Amino acid sequence: MGIEHTDTLPSSAVLAPFGGRGRALMLGHVHPDADVLGTLLALGLALESRGWSVTYGGPHPAPALLAFLPGVDRYRPLRTLDGTFDLVVLTDCPNPDRTEGLIDQARRAGKVIVNVDHHPDNRRYGHVNWIDSTAAATGEMVYELLRALAAPLTPAIATNLFTAVHTDTGSFRYSNVTPRTFTIAAALVAAGARPELVSQSLYERRAPDALHWLGEALSRVEVSEDGQLGWLALPSGAVPERVVESEELVNYPRSIATVRVACLLRERDGQVKVSLRGKGDVDVQRIAAQFGGGGHVNASGCTVAGPLAEAQRAVLTAVRRALDGSPVS
Amino acid sequence: MGIEHTDTLPSSAVLAPFGGRGRALMLGHVHPDADVLGTLLALGLALESRGWSVTYGGPHPAPALLAFLPGVDRYRPLRTLDGTFDLVVLTDCPNPDRTEGLIDQARRAGKVIVNVDHHPDNRRYGHVNWIDSTAAATGEMVYELLRALAAPLTPAIATNLFTAVHTDTGSFRYSNVTPRTFTIAAALVAAGARPELVSQSLYERRAPDALHWLGEALSRVEVSEDGQLGWLALPSGAVPERVVESEELVNYPRSIATVRVACLLRERDGQVKVSLRGKGDVDVQRIAAQFGGGGHVNASGCTVAGPLAEAQRAVLTAVRRALDGSPVS
Repeated sequence: MGIEHTDTLPSSAVLAPFGGRGRALMLGHVHPDADVLGTLLALGLALESRGWSVTYGGPHPAPALLAFLPGVDRYRPLRTLDGTFDLVVLTDCPNPDRTEGLIDQARRAGKVIVNVDHHPDNRRYGHVNWIDSTAAATGEMVYELLRALAAPLTPAIATNLFTAVHTDTGSFRYSNVTPRTFTIAAALVAAGARPELVSQSLYERRAPDALHWLGEALSRVEVSEDGQLGWLALPSGAVPERVVESEELVNYPRSIATVRVACLLRERDGQVKVSLRGKGDVDVQRIAAQFGGGGHVNASGCTVAGPLAEAQRAVLTAVRRALDGSPVS
Repeated sequence: MGIEHTDTLPSSAVLAPFGGRGRALMLGHVHPDADVLGTLLALGLALESRGWSVTYGGPHPAPALLAFLPGVDRYRPLRTLDGTFDLVVLTDCPNPDRTEGLIDQARRAGKVIVNVDHHPDNRRYGHVNWIDSTAAATGEMVYELLRALAAPLTPAIATNLFTAVHTDTGSFRYSNVTPRTFTIAAALVAAGARPELVSQSLYERRAPDALHWLGEALSRVEVSEDGQLGWLALPSGAVPERVVESEELVNYPRSIATVRVACLLRERDGQVKVSLRGKGDVDVQRIAAQFGGGGHVNASGCTVAGPLAEAQRAVLTAVRRALDGSPVS
């Protein structure tokens, strides 16, 4: 529908909406994570330094775990859009349905929508869509955007971007990590991001009882007879929601050597949230898409109607079909 | 006793032993890890490309987990030093006692010993000692050494060095990580290291039953009443040795938000191996030193006589003393 740009560096059409000054809404998707919040805050703070008036918000509040991100205290839950924005910016949000109608409100009110993302399945819902699927992290794109805007790289901005790059690449471990990812990380650390503080904030904030609940969850990991499919199905209430939210549990079945696809199924409010992880030879995005979800080739998700046992049967059957249909690496 | 150099870049005195050609032994310490093997192999392979004849070995064989390191199949267990080396090189080995007498044999036989390390408590046991405690990883130093030697950065060398930098910095998370660490990582990835393959090789090689044993270990984590000290004491046989060796269990109590010092105690053959981790405000190297151990300010270890309960009492008492004596951050 709008302008589309797919390069590593932003085009003049991508930069144009950020020229001059105005009022911007940095809009996050549901359950905002560090990929989203780090990039929204970095770009918003940079715009503020250029004289913009910036608001930060989305359907859900920022999680407590991310309270360390500089400026995140200004991110607030939004039910409706009030009419005072010239520009609405979304980062790392592939699907407009994930704003609970806020994008539609913005569109009806005639706001310019800018969509900056690295997900290949991004729906191009903006007036300006900059989608670079070669970027390991949307944080890399926002870094290039700030450079093109000659925005100062303050320690606050660097910390937000470093966190976004760190989380979006699984701590510099995913297959899409490039020399550019590390070069940008070097620049961000030089600008004041502190890797150990980011890592401690992300990974060393467990409650004293969290390890016992993690042990409880691990006792439920199952592996298929051929070892290729590992999964973890959590009935509602089996493990506290706060623990499930913070533990990235799907990485545990993924960590088994023989596993090619890992799956986490979490029952909640009658629905089952599904996370899928592949190791490169099975496209889990295609599996998630069968259930209306999306993501990346190696990391995708979807939400399926309960009960848990039926959702598990449906999803694992689809995974098994994908495993059988793809060559063994 | 010998030449000492502490800069980021190697001096001519550090480079001198690698001039010309000859026969080198790349010597690892007991229980060699990826920090050691990655750097020894990278440097050895580079020397071979310059016409050197290189042998790789140490008191213990390389662990199966590190079989993916290019060239590691040539690393072999050594009981005694045969007399055919001109040069003996040790990397990331702070203490000569950790070679089970092989360094002493080399010294008596008149070999030139080169000691390349980033541990501040390195004992300077070589004829040439290059100790740069500002390096986050000994891999950074070997990278600079290879550049100074104008050695080609092959994918095999890059993979070894990337792995060493990755493991020695806790996956780019420790407080000593600098822009240089990331700049070097960028160069290594550009030269053919693949972060996702290294990470999969290091972290996604669990046996199907490993997660259940991990859960069992986590159920034993204890936290002091004030939350500042977290520990995990494993009696002999409680968890299979292969699981303990591969899980970095001390990172779990460390991950609790309130914990300032984490401790893992593992009983084996009547002795207790102790790992200590701090979060920046308590010097765990000083605690380990009280028991004849060493390491870094934030990550140290020692071995204490058993039984487990007595070792635990002694070590935790020393930790408590350090905690009480240091300011709360």
